[in-house]
Amino acid sequence: MRFKMLRKYVPIFDWGQTYDRTAFGNDMIAAVIVTIMLIPQSLAYALLAGLPPEAGLYASIAPIILYAIFGTSRALAVGPVAVVSLMTAAAVGNIAETGTMGYALAALTLAALSGAILLAMGVFKLGFLANFLSHPVIAGFITASGMIIAASQLKHILGVDAGGHNLWEIVTSLIAHIPETNQTTLIIGICATGFLFWVRKGLKPTLRKLGLGVRMADVLTKAGPVFAVFATTAATWYLGLADKGVKIVGEVPQSLPPLTMPDFSPGLMADLLVPAILISVIGFVESISVAQTLAAKRRQRINPDQELIGLGAANIGAAFTGGYPVTGGFARSVVNFDAGAQTPAAGAFTAVGLAIAAVALTPLVYFLPKATLAATIIVAVLSLVDFSILKTSWQYSKADFIAVLATILLTLGLGVEVGVTAGVVLSIGLFLYKTSRPHIAEVGLVPDTQHFRNILRHKVITHPSVLTIRIDESLYFANARYLEDYLYDRVVGCKNLKHVVLMCSAVNEIDLSALESLEAINHRLEEMGISLHMSEVKGPVMDRLKKTHFLDELTGEVFLSQFEAVSKLTDGQVAETPPSTEPKIKLV
Amino acid sequence: MRFKMLRKYVPIFDWGQTYDRTAFGNDMIAAVIVTIMLIPQSLAYALLAGLPPEAGLYASIAPIILYAIFGTSRALAVGPVAVVSLMTAAAVGNIAETGTMGYALAALTLAALSGAILLAMGVFKLGFLANFLSHPVIAGFITASGMIIAASQLKHILGVDAGGHNLWEIVTSLIAHIPETNQTTLIIGICATGFLFWVRKGLKPTLRKLGLGVRMADVLTKAGPVFAVFATTAATWYLGLADKGVKIVGEVPQSLPPLTMPDFSPGLMADLLVPAILISVIGFVESISVAQTLAAKRRQRINPDQELIGLGAANIGAAFTGGYPVTGGFARSVVNFDAGAQTPAAGAFTAVGLAIAAVALTPLVYFLPKATLAATIIVAVLSLVDFSILKTSWQYSKADFIAVLATILLTLGLGVEVGVTAGVVLSIGLFLYKTSRPHIAEVGLVPDTQHFRNILRHKVITHPSVLTIRIDESLYFANARYLEDYLYDRVVGCKNLKHVVLMCSAVNEIDLSALESLEAINHRLEEMGISLHMSEVKGPVMDRLKKTHFLDELTGEVFLSQFEAVSKLTDGQVAETPPSTEPKIKLV
Repeated sequence: MRFKMLRKYVPIFDWGQTYDRTAFGNDMIAAVIVTIMLIPQSLAYALLAGLPPEAGLYASIAPIILYAIFGTSRALAVGPVAVVSLMTAAAVGNIAETGTMGYALAALTLAALSGAILLAMGVFKLGFLANFLSHPVIAGFITASGMIIAASQLKHILGVDAGGHNLWEIVTSLIAHIPETNQTTLIIGICATGFLFWVRKGLKPTLRKLGLGVRMADVLTKAGPVFAVFATTAATWYLGLADKGVKIVGEVPQSLPPLTMPDFSPGLMADLLVPAILISVIGFVESISVAQTLAAKRRQRINPDQELIGLGAANIGAAFTGGYPVTGGFARSVVNFDAGAQTPAAGAFTAVGLAIAAVALTPLVYFLPKATLAATIIVAVLSLVDFSILKTSWQYSKADFIAVLATILLTLGLGVEVGVTAGVVLSIGLFLYKTSRPHIAEVGLVPDTQHFRNILRHKVITHPSVLTIRIDESLYFANARYLEDYLYDRVVGCKNLKHVVLMCSAVNEIDLSALESLEAINHRLEEMGISLHMSEVKGPVMDRLKKTHFLDELTGEVFLSQFEAVSKLTDGQVAETPPSTEPKIKLV
Repeated sequence: MRFKMLRKYVPIFDWGQTYDRTAFGNDMIAAVIVTIMLIPQSLAYALLAGLPPEAGLYASIAPIILYAIFGTSRALAVGPVAVVSLMTAAAVGNIAETGTMGYALAALTLAALSGAILLAMGVFKLGFLANFLSHPVIAGFITASGMIIAASQLKHILGVDAGGHNLWEIVTSLIAHIPETNQTTLIIGICATGFLFWVRKGLKPTLRKLGLGVRMADVLTKAGPVFAVFATTAATWYLGLADKGVKIVGEVPQSLPPLTMPDFSPGLMADLLVPAILISVIGFVESISVAQTLAAKRRQRINPDQELIGLGAANIGAAFTGGYPVTGGFARSVVNFDAGAQTPAAGAFTAVGLAIAAVALTPLVYFLPKATLAATIIVAVLSLVDFSILKTSWQYSKADFIAVLATILLTLGLGVEVGVTAGVVLSIGLFLYKTSRPHIAEVGLVPDTQHFRNILRHKVITHPSVLTIRIDESLYFANARYLEDYLYDRVVGCKNLKHVVLMCSAVNEIDLSALESLEAINHRLEEMGISLHMSEVKGPVMDRLKKTHFLDELTGEVFLSQFEAVSKLTDGQVAETPPSTEPKIKLV
């Protein structure tokens, strides 16, 4: 029993029991491939976050191991990712200068806070909160972030000191600094970017044509950035380009991840709380989307609340080992999956690989130009930029379009935090607005059936003494008054009207405010000599109404079905007589 | 045409055309009664707002006239009210010391801002925003505000200098000051309070027993506060009680409302913006509730957006004539209505009466003890305190209960602004939470009908190859994933399952996120050899789906009715054969 609990909360005890030689082999191969890909990526994302390059390596080691212990996805690779690195730069940049001790310390605090928030969300099963980020808002946010990231890296390609937190600031700062462009750096940057784009688009088909196997072509393609790193580093060293003003990575300590202590001063924590919440939620959404996509391909299941715990542990690990906020990355996870990773052990092996790199290989990147890292980032993030969501949402739903457009514009114009917050608030606001003015249809009987539909859309039978209103929304405080107003306007001047039937097939809840409105409607209609009936009230709604006096006071009845209601209220006239032979019945 | 526009936006041109002698007579009588009642009330509410007594009179003059011109309610009386006075004190008290010039100036700015917000809401037809204050939250807020107001007035009854913005602060401050109690003040205060309670509860029956008519008894009862004011003022003057430490109103300038200019400095406006929004919304909700209740009694209609314009004009009037934020008050409007007011002209006559009082009668209140005014307020607001909403909401809906409890506790503990904001946020949050995990029912055919209901609640017919799921909620971003998870869990291990039908009678919208989920569900079920169908999709939802590729990719069909869907998918087995004679059919 206790072991079962342990397996539930520490999944390693689950898959660890059946771990065998085949799985080990597959995991090892995946780990080698991912490690090679991760070395330049980790250095590059640290640069994006405004941190020293080794922070990227450190952020990939302990977090991967902790996720392997606590996470549920078998293929997710946890570490620095582009969007979270950008958000880290934005949050910490408000507090300390890039390159200072305070900056690195604040990044640790951000990781610790973010880890604590993720853990708390997992323990209290609050994973559903991430659902309030709608798909279009996420798509818009990722696209806009990709553009900001790409723009922010152009300064490394030009070799100038530009800055800015939003697209406008970045672009104007870049333009102002163009005269200072270092031409050698620019050449390296353009070559690296061009090469990497070609690797992405053209290399794989070329290799396939040359007769390589699918797998091998794939591995070589993924290793493209490593070639770029190798070639530009060698050129910089051999030609002494660092003396010509090409900025290089420089000395990186040769060390395992250090033990670090985040700064837990209350003032700093208060400043970082909102960014930490946003990073946690965005990171979780990115991670869970990747994990679920990959799990679905192998018919495995992901437990979102356990994922929160895994990601929380990974971030806390990052905080205490010189890293910064991490999450499950899309690119690295797909590589891991394609490379055949079977269990989270693949992640642990990757961590070992990166630890070896941190100890042994860092001197090799001394002459690595920052322009190459910037090129790696630009090529990676531009694949995230996709404006098709604007077209899709415009065609499908204007509310979704407004939310995505606002997210993109505000992210570009005011930064990532404002952008994503506005997207969420706007999505929720538009949903509330729609539910506050529900669609209300007057319905009639579809001939030869027992089915009722909108009189404006279908040929249906109605009766002048019975008005049936179908409310296409739950009744709650925001729309209670709307229904009242609609009904009073509708019944005024209907002389023959004797019965109003509220068809409640779409009413999933009636809250206390709406109940008070229904009481008012019942009372007001009674004064006009009209009885109020209800039909197709759902079980949970009916249970609740039974607790009140409303059903006693209701002037009419509650019918199981709309057909029953109309049959009885019209003495079978609507239900049994064909419309064409009976003048009393109006065919709409 | 132009005159019609004018009549729409300036309703006085509407009712003014048919104004006659009878209406004039009725309005005059109502005005006299309301004026008598308003004099002590206006002074008292100014005291509550922390302003000099004349501010209460001024706030009743121009606003009443402006509302008479722009408002639509025929009985609403606009002026200072208890809750808005308390909110003014809370907002302005954060900015300036009571009794200073800055305090009075900030109150003018608050009225101007509030007026501008109300006007803007009216022009942009944003009156629906007030619907997001649910009935239980309003009830809880009014109850808690009543308690705070009553507690805040106890210092005047004791004759001490206590303070505080929430119940806890007020009570502890009062207890600390008890030793300084002025006994003469206390006697006046207790007598006045006792007398006013008796007037409220016991006077009317007594007068009726003495043979007075209903109307006369009513007028005398409403004039109770005037008797209390008269008696205590006379006693204070005659016995020289001011020298014994009884605090009196003192000198009130004899003047018409002065022309004043609010302070429009940006810093102050920024500080007062949030309180102004809250005051506007709360004031509007109070006012519109009263106006609609009274209009319903005479079968008149209120136009909420025009009401916003009327209240906005009234507040701007208050800002420029030495007043402070105003709204349509419950007590005064009911008196106005009961006294027979027929048109907004009654309000204008009341304004004339109050102007005469401001010019001629203010010396008479020199010796009026503040304790009497406090007694007036206490007796008025305690009638607002009503905890029955806690019981009602507890029995009916736990979500409503949580919202009302939080509103009451936070208003009492942290003040009016936090309380009402928390109530609104919590109501919306709980609504979103509920819609994010919708009720999902598996349905079957009710025998001998074409009607489908929940298999857990009704005796229905189902078929092993067809699973029908009724989703009791619109599908949108917050619950899209929930439906996916539910369906995958449900279909796993159903070997004979061939068709899944989503019965969409309660689905009022499918947003882009949900559409993507449906596409994923369709695709996943297809891989399992199950087709996905939909039934009873509503017109507006279907219109939108037709714009996408979803219907082309759907493995199944879209049926007009659930009955049609099941009849076709089971080759009529479910629909035509009685359940008892056919073993293939499962009766649940």
